[in-house]
Amino acid sequence: MTPTSAPIPQTTATDPILGPMVVLAEPLVLQSGETLADVTMAYQTYGALNADKSNVIVLCHALTGDQFVCGQHPITGKRGWWDDSVGLGKVIDTNRYFVICANVLGGCLGSTGPKEINPATGRAWGLQFPVITIRDIVAAQAKLLDQLGIDKILCVVGGSMGAMQALEWAHRYPSRVFAAVPIAGSYRHSAQNIAFHEVGRQAIMADPEWSHGNYLEEGRVPKRGLAVARMAAHITYLSETALHRKFGRKLQDRSALTYGFDADFQVESYLRHQGYTFVDRFDANSYLYITRAMDYFDLASENGGVLANAFKGSSVRFCLVSFTSDWLFPTAESRAIVHALNAVAANVSFVEIESDKGHDAFLLDEPDFHQTLSGFINGCADAHGVAKA
Amino acid sequence: MTPTSAPIPQTTATDPILGPMVVLAEPLVLQSGETLADVTMAYQTYGALNADKSNVIVLCHALTGDQFVCGQHPITGKRGWWDDSVGLGKVIDTNRYFVICANVLGGCLGSTGPKEINPATGRAWGLQFPVITIRDIVAAQAKLLDQLGIDKILCVVGGSMGAMQALEWAHRYPSRVFAAVPIAGSYRHSAQNIAFHEVGRQAIMADPEWSHGNYLEEGRVPKRGLAVARMAAHITYLSETALHRKFGRKLQDRSALTYGFDADFQVESYLRHQGYTFVDRFDANSYLYITRAMDYFDLASENGGVLANAFKGSSVRFCLVSFTSDWLFPTAESRAIVHALNAVAANVSFVEIESDKGHDAFLLDEPDFHQTLSGFINGCADAHGVAKA
Repeated sequence: MTPTSAPIPQTTATDPILGPMVVLAEPLVLQSGETLADVTMAYQTYGALNADKSNVIVLCHALTGDQFVCGQHPITGKRGWWDDSVGLGKVIDTNRYFVICANVLGGCLGSTGPKEINPATGRAWGLQFPVITIRDIVAAQAKLLDQLGIDKILCVVGGSMGAMQALEWAHRYPSRVFAAVPIAGSYRHSAQNIAFHEVGRQAIMADPEWSHGNYLEEGRVPKRGLAVARMAAHITYLSETALHRKFGRKLQDRSALTYGFDADFQVESYLRHQGYTFVDRFDANSYLYITRAMDYFDLASENGGVLANAFKGSSVRFCLVSFTSDWLFPTAESRAIVHALNAVAANVSFVEIESDKGHDAFLLDEPDFHQTLSGFINGCADAHGVAKA
Repeated sequence: MTPTSAPIPQTTATDPILGPMVVLAEPLVLQSGETLADVTMAYQTYGALNADKSNVIVLCHALTGDQFVCGQHPITGKRGWWDDSVGLGKVIDTNRYFVICANVLGGCLGSTGPKEINPATGRAWGLQFPVITIRDIVAAQAKLLDQLGIDKILCVVGGSMGAMQALEWAHRYPSRVFAAVPIAGSYRHSAQNIAFHEVGRQAIMADPEWSHGNYLEEGRVPKRGLAVARMAAHITYLSETALHRKFGRKLQDRSALTYGFDADFQVESYLRHQGYTFVDRFDANSYLYITRAMDYFDLASENGGVLANAFKGSSVRFCLVSFTSDWLFPTAESRAIVHALNAVAANVSFVEIESDKGHDAFLLDEPDFHQTLSGFINGCADAHGVAKA
């Protein structure tokens, strides 16, 4: 059964390629203290909002994700990042749920970010764009929902940086959130993860084409730096086992070593491909700002050094998910959140999924994970009185 | 008791800073099939060669190591890479042993490599230098020992890339090697490790100052690319626990986040320091060649896909060492070597050292490791009839 539709207020603009966008009515006061006016939020929705608006699922995308969750991506032509999980009859069934996903503040697919025009100067923001945080990213989403006339969220779901946003939603807007599913995430970015991000940023900034962030104004693109950043990051998304199974020491289109610096090994060719296709769809400055937002995230430190304080008296239902072979956001990070939630007697379940696919497992077709996800979300919907599909 | 000294043949040259060097009398036929003539090998020795030349320990350095094992390094002014372990009264006691360590072929501290002058052109080799392998590196060491009048080695010891060389020594020159200690190494570079090396190479090659490898001729230095390569690699040398203990999310000389791209976190500042001090002592092209040599190393594939074949009938005594928190060369890699050695009934012992310091543990003051090392080496020396110190 398709839910009865509630009307969605008119969006301010519709980009022919990127789709609907809303300009936030009020300026956003950022965590840094700076103020950002005329914030545009680009977003996508899937499914229909039901009459009592009780079937809203907010999806929060990861560092290099975007609002195009499923179906064909308008820029890359490939499937959206969660096409395996979201759609008609899928794990998050758009027959039953109204799914909304916004491009994050600071992003480069329509939402206000360093790539967009600074209204004060008429030029691309570049490094004049203020540093933003996960709190700012979620605050912008909350204001977007306000303007779309959506107050309550059945469930906020996200993996990796999306998990940080899901935690932030539950922490900052507990009365708006019925349930939260932080997947393969953390309550604070670890020293190792900050280090990997710093390598990526240094790679971008080392590229002369980056030009201190002014490349857009100068008609340049720091392709090589951004590609190196992506390559380094990409290794961290996969497990050693996955890389070994996929590539091992197999050679690329040749029968013997060439004794040179070409991509002799398939894994080299794969990495180069990952790096150089990424630059066609992502903005280098956005990469700087979003990695910085992740580095700054620390829900414990913001709450007197005690993570549990962030969730005192919370009525949000939590489901934490981690993957055994994820070494970027290992299970211990999720377990620390579970312990904090237990300490304040919050409603929390926790599943560690057996997978050898590393951090990226949350994007892939992992049956145990999908069962956990659909079981939890559908259970919440039933408890919340959302009509079945 | 200081061993009676056997005379060391005259070296061909002595550099005022880098010390003794030998030009190999015969050209080196490389694994690639190319021939390299007039190969210079720069080396250091510690302790004295005894009368029957039975107290020789060959140390093989790691990717960014060099021949300056202990004492003050002539370029950096810091202690040598194994000053904790090698010296008078230390784990490898130079009262008893004659220690020799050569800068690897392809290196940048005196041995022939891409930084040196190509006699055929009178210019720096750059990318005209042939791609070399671990086999070539060890072959050059063997020829160096020939010219120094040293036939037999009591023990060949090395960590990381040094472990690859120790295995290669034992495989290729079994009659010259009494014992071998491959530490924190592997018999073949894994897909993940090739991937990390490829990121480093891409970072160097992305730097316009690299200039297709001709930077020396053009008076340029690809500092930024090499620094990024070093930063990425450096993360892999440490465990997550070590990074967390050392830095956590501590801020660098500030009391609050600055909301910018400066090094707010100590770990960022540390990484930048690691990157930018490295470029003062290392050559970017050497980094390309030596990482390539490691990637190409695969003792199993060279022996019909069966590692055990590499050591059939070997009389070498092996001691394998790994560290629990080493994720670059995890224990499983050493264990695979032990299994292969067991399969051919070789004399092998294996110790996994409990340490949370990651791959770099082999360079550090780890008491259990040092006890293993001295126990094994001294036992070999006793069995071999080397007089006690």
